[in-house]
Amino acid sequence: MSDIPRITIDQCGSHAGETVEIAGWLYNLRKSGKIIFPLIRDGRGIIQCVGLKNSLPEDLFNALKDLTQESSVIVRGKIRAEQRAPGGYELDLESAEIVQRVPESHPYPITPKDHGIEFLMDHRHLWLRSRRQHAILRVRHEIIKAIRDYFDSNGFTLVDTPIFTPAACEGTTTLFEVNYFDEEKVYLTQSGQLYNEATALAFGKTYCFGPTFRAEKSKTRRHLTEFWMVEPEMAYATLEDVKNVAEGLICFVVQRVLENRKNDLTDLERDTGKLESIKPPFPRISYDQAVEILHRKGSQIEWGGDFGGTDETLLSEEFDRPVMVDRYPSQVKAFYFQPDPDRPEVALGVDVLASEGYGEIVGGGQRIHDLALLEKRLEEHNLPREAFDWYLDLRRFGSVPHAGFGMGVERCVAWLCGIEHIRETIAFPRMLYRTRP
Amino acid sequence: MSDIPRITIDQCGSHAGETVEIAGWLYNLRKSGKIIFPLIRDGRGIIQCVGLKNSLPEDLFNALKDLTQESSVIVRGKIRAEQRAPGGYELDLESAEIVQRVPESHPYPITPKDHGIEFLMDHRHLWLRSRRQHAILRVRHEIIKAIRDYFDSNGFTLVDTPIFTPAACEGTTTLFEVNYFDEEKVYLTQSGQLYNEATALAFGKTYCFGPTFRAEKSKTRRHLTEFWMVEPEMAYATLEDVKNVAEGLICFVVQRVLENRKNDLTDLERDTGKLESIKPPFPRISYDQAVEILHRKGSQIEWGGDFGGTDETLLSEEFDRPVMVDRYPSQVKAFYFQPDPDRPEVALGVDVLASEGYGEIVGGGQRIHDLALLEKRLEEHNLPREAFDWYLDLRRFGSVPHAGFGMGVERCVAWLCGIEHIRETIAFPRMLYRTRP
Repeated sequence: MSDIPRITIDQCGSHAGETVEIAGWLYNLRKSGKIIFPLIRDGRGIIQCVGLKNSLPEDLFNALKDLTQESSVIVRGKIRAEQRAPGGYELDLESAEIVQRVPESHPYPITPKDHGIEFLMDHRHLWLRSRRQHAILRVRHEIIKAIRDYFDSNGFTLVDTPIFTPAACEGTTTLFEVNYFDEEKVYLTQSGQLYNEATALAFGKTYCFGPTFRAEKSKTRRHLTEFWMVEPEMAYATLEDVKNVAEGLICFVVQRVLENRKNDLTDLERDTGKLESIKPPFPRISYDQAVEILHRKGSQIEWGGDFGGTDETLLSEEFDRPVMVDRYPSQVKAFYFQPDPDRPEVALGVDVLASEGYGEIVGGGQRIHDLALLEKRLEEHNLPREAFDWYLDLRRFGSVPHAGFGMGVERCVAWLCGIEHIRETIAFPRMLYRTRP
Repeated sequence: MSDIPRITIDQCGSHAGETVEIAGWLYNLRKSGKIIFPLIRDGRGIIQCVGLKNSLPEDLFNALKDLTQESSVIVRGKIRAEQRAPGGYELDLESAEIVQRVPESHPYPITPKDHGIEFLMDHRHLWLRSRRQHAILRVRHEIIKAIRDYFDSNGFTLVDTPIFTPAACEGTTTLFEVNYFDEEKVYLTQSGQLYNEATALAFGKTYCFGPTFRAEKSKTRRHLTEFWMVEPEMAYATLEDVKNVAEGLICFVVQRVLENRKNDLTDLERDTGKLESIKPPFPRISYDQAVEILHRKGSQIEWGGDFGGTDETLLSEEFDRPVMVDRYPSQVKAFYFQPDPDRPEVALGVDVLASEGYGEIVGGGQRIHDLALLEKRLEEHNLPREAFDWYLDLRRFGSVPHAGFGMGVERCVAWLCGIEHIRETIAFPRMLYRTRP
């Protein structure tokens, strides 16, 4: 197109004083007589351009002056450091090329005015261009990258587990069913854990990281039907290892986001002070202690019940960082939890509740490694022994104490971004009444 | 357990001369009177231990002497450099603890003798412990990490696309259908591309990377019903950009595997010389030229048809590195391909065929960015206009030339590992007649 180097807006810092080309879209436009200020976004940043009537061809100046929101445009000009500009730089327009002009007769539907949430969700494919959605998804990318880097550099092997699964991990009522060549039924995975136990005995420490599915008929701000989860699993490991790895992982992720996504957190008006205090050690309390705290705060919960969203919020208010709650009653936990040898009525499991009332982000614990005990539990839970025969093999051949956990990506994104509703934490959320676009 | 540091076998190099503890499983055992050589695997490597009758308690020596394959055991002893050992080190046994002994009455089912493939697939949860499967999945991990690192460090934002999709991207015959709360039907994604086009216009350059699904009734060595695919998409980009990025990506991935997984490639008896020649530039030929080559080699293909597996193998034999074939007849390509302006009967698409006959690993090209042309194509392909309305929006609001591609992970793994059948390239393969374990 020209000899002028094409750069992205995040690269302006190393091109100050140079003439460059930026390909993007019109985000906004101010004008004042003989001067126009087109705000250009290119997916990596937003920069204000300055166009003077005197220094641009008349046709171009007039075309730019009336340019419509989200029209695609390539701008050329000199990068100038400008302290007052949000990104620190402005571009003095020398020329431009309008690639596609959005017509006034059919304007870009998302305007600076308020839109209802259903309208925005119907236009999710366009809404993603907004500054706030953009910031959230860039934080999401950073979180996912940090999670993978953490496990990759700590001796874990990535072994992805299957999406099509023949059996349910935690009951069948919340499973999505798939017609598999009209011959048999398979389900969409709710967790890779059972498979992780096999791969941990093969690789020592493993993790899987992919989409998981729950057909929950709950319409809350914390539930998606399709969400991403990372699940590490470790052979020769106990509940204590789960706590330490989860703590290390969470601190690593928070630090990375603070280091690399400061601008996005600013765009989201996130109070980063609250994130900066997320350092080890996290408070560790037992389920019993948690129930005491809840009673003191007026909750009616009885020993033996699982915590609801309100309980989780009350608990997390007590601490300035995530809190680890362990040794839940076995009756509220899945069949595979190792019982506490000193108190068989509680499970060697732990939940991590995010700070600021964001609820559970991690759940895990130690698995039963004794064949006879696991067989007994399958019976007690009325689970079909045949379907779990391969899983029992893991206790027949080289069984060892092992442990792991799952961490939901979307809840982490909501927490670190400080946003209310989980629907904004993924590009195309899937919920009870939402499968489009 | 003790003050002796626990290490993994891949860390032996920095502990030579020290007494350490390794927690693993018995991989094999040789014995010769007063000396035993247990081969221990721990998921990170395999090390030979040396146990002398004179220096071990009699009970322990006897227990180890009769230890069964895949019994779990913690060994302690001094690491000694040993040139003749495969990993370069041996461990002189000082003590050991048998965690679980596999009983002779119910021995580990996978023995050094040959097993049929169905038997091995039924025992996939255990087969993963074998040296060859282990090596393949470690190469797979390296490939996935390299792919992500490449995009993360080249200005691409990860934006995962949905698994539940309301419409088909490339025809409905190979879609898996899911019951979504008995109310509506959704399908499992075959490609994130349509969504990528939306996110590329929001972020400039994006990629998605997740499982994709095809309900193909083909039972070949190249097909899985569930497989992982990475799909980058770029705004302001053309067919040429696709070729350059695909070439850069493939070379980066091959280099990383050669650098970091040499031992695994050795275990797989891979001819690494063939991988070392995979350097840019890749040969670039047109579909027309490819047809000529095929005719010369005796193929009966007629201009206008798509290549079959045999054609791909014949073509790739011509080159010592992957070959890029562009400008296929539009009639064999999907509705969204941009036609060549000089020859509208061919599409601005490209396939990359791996070397050594491994077939197509990349497919992509430039997308139609003109609204009227895209509307026409939807009609010609009898696609429901309503379902694609959001997709048409991308041509209404800031449309730009854009392009991208998809690369299948499992085919890359098969190629780089030099293995015949795709079923070994993923931990728990899903095929026409295989959904277990």
